[in-house]
Amino acid sequence: MTVSRVKLSPQGPEFSRFIAGFWRAMSWQKSPQDLLAFIEQNVELGVTTMDHADIYSDGECEKAFGAAIKLQPGLRDKIEIVSKCGIKPAFDTRPERYVNHYDTSKEHIIASAEQSLLNLEVESLDMLLIHRPDPLMDAEQVAAAFSLLQQQGKVKHFGVSNFTNSQFELLQSACEMPLLTNQIEISPVNISALHDGSLDYCQQHKVSAMAWSCLAGGEIFTGESEQAQRLREVLIKVAAEIGAANIDQVIYAWILALPAQVLPIIGSGRIERTRSTVATEALQLDRQQWFSIWQASTGHSVP
Amino acid sequence: MTVSRVKLSPQGPEFSRFIAGFWRAMSWQKSPQDLLAFIEQNVELGVTTMDHADIYSDGECEKAFGAAIKLQPGLRDKIEIVSKCGIKPAFDTRPERYVNHYDTSKEHIIASAEQSLLNLEVESLDMLLIHRPDPLMDAEQVAAAFSLLQQQGKVKHFGVSNFTNSQFELLQSACEMPLLTNQIEISPVNISALHDGSLDYCQQHKVSAMAWSCLAGGEIFTGESEQAQRLREVLIKVAAEIGAANIDQVIYAWILALPAQVLPIIGSGRIERTRSTVATEALQLDRQQWFSIWQASTGHSVP
Amino acid sequence: MTVSRVKLSPQGPEFSRFIAGFWRAMSWQKSPQDLLAFIEQNVELGVTTMDHADIYSDGECEKAFGAAIKLQPGLRDKIEIVSKCGIKPAFDTRPERYVNHYDTSKEHIIASAEQSLLNLEVESLDMLLIHRPDPLMDAEQVAAAFSLLQQQGKVKHFGVSNFTNSQFELLQSACEMPLLTNQIEISPVNISALHDGSLDYCQQHKVSAMAWSCLAGGEIFTGESEQAQRLREVLIKVAAEIGAANIDQVIYAWILALPAQVLPIIGSGRIERTRSTVATEALQLDRQQWFSIWQASTGHSVP
Repeated sequence: MTVSRVKLSPQGPEFSRFIAGFWRAMSWQKSPQDLLAFIEQNVELGVTTMDHADIYSDGECEKAFGAAIKLQPGLRDKIEIVSKCGIKPAFDTRPERYVNHYDTSKEHIIASAEQSLLNLEVESLDMLLIHRPDPLMDAEQVAAAFSLLQQQGKVKHFGVSNFTNSQFELLQSACEMPLLTNQIEISPVNISALHDGSLDYCQQHKVSAMAWSCLAGGEIFTGESEQAQRLREVLIKVAAEIGAANIDQVIYAWILALPAQVLPIIGSGRIERTRSTVATEALQLDRQQWFSIWQASTGHSVP
Repeated sequence: MTVSRVKLSPQGPEFSRFIAGFWRAMSWQKSPQDLLAFIEQNVELGVTTMDHADIYSDGECEKAFGAAIKLQPGLRDKIEIVSKCGIKPAFDTRPERYVNHYDTSKEHIIASAEQSLLNLEVESLDMLLIHRPDPLMDAEQVAAAFSLLQQQGKVKHFGVSNFTNSQFELLQSACEMPLLTNQIEISPVNISALHDGSLDYCQQHKVSAMAWSCLAGGEIFTGESEQAQRLREVLIKVAAEIGAANIDQVIYAWILALPAQVLPIIGSGRIERTRSTVATEALQLDRQQWFSIWQASTGHSVP
Repeated sequence: MTVSRVKLSPQGPEFSRFIAGFWRAMSWQKSPQDLLAFIEQNVELGVTTMDHADIYSDGECEKAFGAAIKLQPGLRDKIEIVSKCGIKPAFDTRPERYVNHYDTSKEHIIASAEQSLLNLEVESLDMLLIHRPDPLMDAEQVAAAFSLLQQQGKVKHFGVSNFTNSQFELLQSACEMPLLTNQIEISPVNISALHDGSLDYCQQHKVSAMAWSCLAGGEIFTGESEQAQRLREVLIKVAAEIGAANIDQVIYAWILALPAQVLPIIGSGRIERTRSTVATEALQLDRQQWFSIWQASTGHSVP
């Protein structure tokens, strides 16, 4: 069973419906060979889209990924690489970086993208995202950076992450190319994107959403909040009803059911979890099952 | 004195400025003959638009209404019938319906509209509304259902209820016909539609609003909250100033004063209350009276 | 050193980047000669745009300003006068005005603008703003008033104040001329405009923002809240880093750094404070300094 492929716009590109996320890749402690094997196993499952950011372990995730795929010539052409820029974290070890901040200047976007190419040891990114909405964002500067990177063949497609609708519209109005995704948090623990207009906007304008933190960082599995307890109870019940192997699958099926085209990011480094997640596409929640989970999330039934 | 008629769009249709609501019709315990008399008295007052939903008493309201108007041939052509679909409530008596949920699939919209036609014993609805915004709403499916129902002559016009602006825009973008109304809650107890952009949007796009729960379910008359007490005091004062017969009239005049075209729904089964409400159109609040009520609602003066 | 000039639209007009605000002018207790001297000193500094409203001291501010500039023929042509209308405050001394309210009727807008012309003893206003969003605003009426005032040469340009995006869009959709500004509250104490979409909208649609209460009414200087204490500490640190004479300058530099074109209003009657403020344009915050202030405002770092 392999994951389906989805077009991010009528003209492409095609990404895999599930995305492998490398945020925590350094904690997996894989050798280059092991990381390569993990990546190849993802590709075998159809999970060809790989999510990075310049700040994941301060560039080390991109470098480890680059070192791994270099071991297997030809692998680059079988995958789509997404990276992000715009956040500059504070570092205890670098006194000159004393406050978490954003930088969406033309210079920084270009420099960050070029550094990602060096880290990843590839010639182009398939997609570059602005990581967070920056109150200092000058949309013309971002648009100029995107255009230059595209002309130079360094980045093929562009998008954003964690943007509100007004921020998305502002940036889109300045860009000559379509913004193809908004990567946002969606999980049964955090359903705000379902009601704040974000997913309405994505559906209307055919913007794919990528979903991060679908499992809410483990809160659903081990959290002691009333919400987590309600969710576990319902998810276990629904898992039994639909023949899911675990409640992770129910959660992913719940997200895949959203009418906007949502591409969940899998954050695990264990291929058996990816294999389990990929199987989710075959599962189907009926509307009562779906709204039971909504109800467990909010603590009340729909009005 | 009869109620004025308003166009929902330059091309029509014309509805009555006040709407008779049949949500609680089963609690009125009227015989078919009594319900017919009530409907005919409404029509005499100019209240020709009748508001239903598939879920009001699980279809019994529509059926009682249908049985009543069948007693008087020709009555159907003097009224406009609105119904709604999209909510599927849980039922204690039907274990297979165990959770309140929404269904805005093409199949359900069509099935619900057709069932409403059977219940009401009429050949067409004048207007069908999606009752609640559904996080699973696929706008293309709703649009396809609307188009088919219109082509088949089963429903003439379409709208929504309780939609936010982003949900309205999403659905409108997919529909070939204009959505003519958003039926929302407006009362001196709940003024959120005045400030969350809903009525701004209606005014800008010439979308009529229908207002439900204008009297806030009696909270204003008997509630012990500070807000209810403040409101009663001001409403009684204003009633005396403008020569209103009761504070209901002041509330309706306060809603009619809104610059978007708002059509209040009357929820009562007593024709004397409808007669009193209809007289509201002759009353006029000045701006200080209007803002006194706003101030009593919020507990502070405008900034 | 004089203040730069900015175009409010490609076709003009040009206003000064900083605006002199006369809200508190009566508390300055200046003679007409002193007020004239203050105005001329502002003009020497390049601060040629003067912000009024019909309600500032119930018209007395406009009258005092008019009496002052009349003393110096030719001065009128060197300045841009902004006024506002739409608020009708309650007055203890006028029992017929018993509640703070808004009035955006065509008649009131025209009458208020004409009264401002009389008060200021000038033939035209450079700009008229609707002071607050009015839930009773009929956009067509406002548009009709604006068109008439413009045709009669009484007001050259138009804008709004404290409007949300949906209210701005509503009014703009009805007006034949562009609305050139939204005058809103922006300060390190109140950063909501940076995140509620207001400044996104301004940037996208090239609408200049005017900023009121930039110093938060002194809260930053003397407030005992945790936020005020955090802000003072950071502002003092940044002032030393960038060579600012005082923390006011840091605050204004923080606002000038916003990517929408923001024109801060100076509320002081002391020309030395204006002189200090004007010098802000030469100061530059780097992004870490800017986000340190954002962090002190919110109490947490950016996500």
